[in-house]
Amino acid sequence: MNFLEERIVKDGIIKSGNVLKVDSFLNHQMDISLMEEIGREFKRRFAHKTIDKVITIEASGIGIAAFVAKEFGVPLVFAKKSKSINIDGDMYVAEVESFTHKNKNQVIVSKRFLHEGEHILIVDDFLANGCALQGLISITESAGAVVEGCGIVIEKGFQFGGRVIRNMGYHVESLAIVDAMDAESGKITFRAQD
Amino acid sequence: MNFLEERIVKDGIIKSGNVLKVDSFLNHQMDISLMEEIGREFKRRFAHKTIDKVITIEASGIGIAAFVAKEFGVPLVFAKKSKSINIDGDMYVAEVESFTHKNKNQVIVSKRFLHEGEHILIVDDFLANGCALQGLISITESAGAVVEGCGIVIEKGFQFGGRVIRNMGYHVESLAIVDAMDAESGKITFRAQD
Repeated sequence: MNFLEERIVKDGIIKSGNVLKVDSFLNHQMDISLMEEIGREFKRRFAHKTIDKVITIEASGIGIAAFVAKEFGVPLVFAKKSKSINIDGDMYVAEVESFTHKNKNQVIVSKRFLHEGEHILIVDDFLANGCALQGLISITESAGAVVEGCGIVIEKGFQFGGRVIRNMGYHVESLAIVDAMDAESGKITFRAQD
Repeated sequence: MNFLEERIVKDGIIKSGNVLKVDSFLNHQMDISLMEEIGREFKRRFAHKTIDKVITIEASGIGIAAFVAKEFGVPLVFAKKSKSINIDGDMYVAEVESFTHKNKNQVIVSKRFLHEGEHILIVDDFLANGCALQGLISITESAGAVVEGCGIVIEKGFQFGGRVIRNMGYHVESLAIVDAMDAESGKITFRAQD
């Protein structure tokens, strides 16, 4: 097991309905040392790529992606959910369905922060059905920028998002891929990775 | 002018309705070097305080507060807007009105992540009418934890939030206090600080 899988086993809580709670260290309370380690690990996994910018989606992706951007020495752009009066009309938009909240959001990035030919690393905390990730890919490509890869902290391998996006040819790296989990026994099975 | 005031003059955009857009470096695209500098500056301003935890509110506070928490070597907890099915019933709740979005949100923190006697530094990107900050103060004190201070990146000094909260006896440090700004001329006036 790698450092993240060990942490999930130690502090993650499996709930019925295939919910994995990692709110004690990842998406409500954040262990900053772990964030830094995640940043370094994505830098290692995408070391051969030129990255101009990291992109994520609010809210829980921001803390993680900030430390990834730090490792690459590039800016972070976070896509926003729903229209804010502080955002100009001139933006890229994708529609994203949330597995957690059971609703649809418009996800937007200002055209001022994504440009043709830029090399983009997309980062997010979870990959399940892949809607959020597909939204970020769509926004990136609308700008004429290049998706160099997708860095995911926890992938639910028993849902289809990861497979669909890899089949589309994208380079997806997930630090932990959960192939099965059982709320009753608390048992969790990770996919073996190199 | 300090480093942040200089950056606001350089890249901030003043819009009518007292809107200061800092989305090119703070709350849509994030300059990570600037976040690190902000983290170091809050560490300097609250150096004499014992801090056990940093608390902020999603979304744009997270990236900033993460680097503050890093400087103090403590966890970050971010309050969530609206109820998520991934959050237990057992939580602290405050009602917060958003100046930007013109709506009200329930803001929640799980009781598992805030404890009696903990020393808390509250961090947020903006302070205007003070609603978000008062919500975070209320949540912290509901837990019996101690508000050691409030670290704000940009305070709108011409709104009343900062004055009210300082008058309540809280130690508020704002890296830039905007006392006046004019959309037509683009002129911005900062309050002098030591």
